[in-house]
Amino acid sequence: MRTQLAEQFGIDYPIFGFTPSQEVAAAISRAGGLGVLGCVRFNDAGELDEVLEWMHENTDGKPFGVDVVMPAKIPTEGSKVDLDSMIPPEHRAFVERTLSELGVPPLADDAGVNTGVLGWLHSVARSHVDVAMEHTRKYGQIKLIANALGSPPDDVIAVAHENGVKVAALAGTSEHARSHVGAGVDIVIAQGYEGGGHTGDVASMVLWPEIVDAVGDVPVLAAGGVGDGRQIAAAVALGAQGVWMGTYWLTAAEYNLGATGGIGATGDGPSTVQQALLKASSRDTVRRRIYSGKPARLLKTRWTDAWDAPGAPDPLPMPLQNLLVGEAHARISAADDPEVVAIPAGQIVGRCNAIVPVAELIDGLVAGYDDAVERMSRTVVARPTAAG
Amino acid sequence: MRTQLAEQFGIDYPIFGFTPSQEVAAAISRAGGLGVLGCVRFNDAGELDEVLEWMHENTDGKPFGVDVVMPAKIPTEGSKVDLDSMIPPEHRAFVERTLSELGVPPLADDAGVNTGVLGWLHSVARSHVDVAMEHTRKYGQIKLIANALGSPPDDVIAVAHENGVKVAALAGTSEHARSHVGAGVDIVIAQGYEGGGHTGDVASMVLWPEIVDAVGDVPVLAAGGVGDGRQIAAAVALGAQGVWMGTYWLTAAEYNLGATGGIGATGDGPSTVQQALLKASSRDTVRRRIYSGKPARLLKTRWTDAWDAPGAPDPLPMPLQNLLVGEAHARISAADDPEVVAIPAGQIVGRCNAIVPVAELIDGLVAGYDDAVERMSRTVVARPTAAG
Repeated sequence: MRTQLAEQFGIDYPIFGFTPSQEVAAAISRAGGLGVLGCVRFNDAGELDEVLEWMHENTDGKPFGVDVVMPAKIPTEGSKVDLDSMIPPEHRAFVERTLSELGVPPLADDAGVNTGVLGWLHSVARSHVDVAMEHTRKYGQIKLIANALGSPPDDVIAVAHENGVKVAALAGTSEHARSHVGAGVDIVIAQGYEGGGHTGDVASMVLWPEIVDAVGDVPVLAAGGVGDGRQIAAAVALGAQGVWMGTYWLTAAEYNLGATGGIGATGDGPSTVQQALLKASSRDTVRRRIYSGKPARLLKTRWTDAWDAPGAPDPLPMPLQNLLVGEAHARISAADDPEVVAIPAGQIVGRCNAIVPVAELIDGLVAGYDDAVERMSRTVVARPTAAG
Repeated sequence: MRTQLAEQFGIDYPIFGFTPSQEVAAAISRAGGLGVLGCVRFNDAGELDEVLEWMHENTDGKPFGVDVVMPAKIPTEGSKVDLDSMIPPEHRAFVERTLSELGVPPLADDAGVNTGVLGWLHSVARSHVDVAMEHTRKYGQIKLIANALGSPPDDVIAVAHENGVKVAALAGTSEHARSHVGAGVDIVIAQGYEGGGHTGDVASMVLWPEIVDAVGDVPVLAAGGVGDGRQIAAAVALGAQGVWMGTYWLTAAEYNLGATGGIGATGDGPSTVQQALLKASSRDTVRRRIYSGKPARLLKTRWTDAWDAPGAPDPLPMPLQNLLVGEAHARISAADDPEVVAIPAGQIVGRCNAIVPVAELIDGLVAGYDDAVERMSRTVVARPTAAG
């Protein structure tokens, strides 16, 4: 499974693994892929700084990446207090009532839970970039900065390039992909309808080759629906230089966010979120604006059902919706009920059926890929390996 | 592009082309694929009988198939008059008002337009099966009967098998696929979200391998999102034995439904429907219940927009919705306005950008497939063709 892009990054396989878990990101890089650490959960730059140090110590010098959430245009942005005042009271009342109906208790006073909403603010995302650039100047391991909201601002692209860091941006349409390339983005992540988190309406089978054709020589990573070596083969068949996978790592053995015990602890068996993911089928996701204000695919649970029920309010625009539901997410997380979780997940969640270490997952992907290519080579009639 | 299924059918390429046009179906079979004639537009069996004779005379003895629309359970079904009485007057008023607002005139008294709604009735679909079976006993060319609504009734499967005809059924979930196999269906057509016509919510990238895994040795045709050799390669990579394509043939040069001049005439340039398809992008479709009563992907036009507008009624269940809109479809077709057409189309419509003869389309698919397989073979490190 060798592509030009993999060679360019010095990795064995063009498997780019997005995950908010540093344990998983490090394991992906150690296993020959490129782990990409999601930064949106870090409210302050100091916390990210520590985690990047941890990544350095746990990746055997292999490359990795970071993922930030940053609009191309710097939004007018107040403090959290200003933004809070823009949330209508009816929305707050709906959230409070829903949590109560779902049996989700308030946070304990000493919970100290990170509500993780500030990472969605431009100023905070910007501090993530600054910290990542410091780290790459120090250790040279951060080779990629990806932006979940499209092209980052011009000066972020410039500073990344000065530091030898490639810039990737998610696109759900070929128009967006072209615009990213125009802005100086090096790699387009084509994210189809079936993907977890923010997605458009065009499905991967149609979107990937459309974006490949739209951006010419710029490499494309295929995202949305990948959790099997056959799907990586499909991505390469469709012209992608590699894959971008997110949902698939949520049931990795190393994934311990939401588990008791904190960083480094894997707990006793699957966490609440993992229990919910393990039993979900490909039909158990919905694409809604309730997570961030923009359409994002989420695991379907009693929480998403509540927002679909008659009388539920329309979600607010980004970043207000995230601010509205930030504490709710923290409460849901603390409540420990697999029927009520709030987590982005793609349709490939139907293939997340066991808790497996990252290295085994990657071995399986590579074996599945090789099988698929071998199987395909037998279908070409003129080839010497074919029967006809 | 040789698979076991293609060999079983005695065709050069495992490209199964669904189309309501006999000219296109015949051209697909002549070019080495398997043309599958959609029968739902034939209100009486005699008409289908004539068209199948025409198919026989225009396919050089090559195999072809037919596609019917038939629920597994025989519904309680009255005459058209009985059914008409079940349509609420508000729905009729909405359709009438909408057509008027869109500038769609009534049909001329002598239009003699086939409103094509009876093909959705079980009794009519059953007569299609009878005629197809007669033809296959006579000429032995009909090798496949496909059902757009899933497993056909048991006795239809039995009579098909007695006549050496394989039975295929569309599935949008792995549960449906397993149930089809249990009912005796020979081939499952896995139709992803992005497909034209009836679809579920799970996209092709996820659905195809899921159904391949669910049905064991039963061959799977990949449907939804195919209009390029790379996508056929992806289908084979994902474990399918071939592809089922529909939308892609609508802009074939031979497609003359809706063109002036009747059967055999290709008219002067693209028809109204083709003009609408040629300029559509992958984002110009919607999945709605307004065509048949079940969710089906359609080209987005002012007609579909009207059903999305505030105050539009909820669509009726099948077959009432088709009865409700049957005359509207005929009026729209006669009105000749590319902004107001009513046609099922998948997201791959974004790749329907020119009027091209079927033989050229198939040449292009095969070349694209071979390129993709060749490109993939270079990514496998251990193979002698690879650089590393």
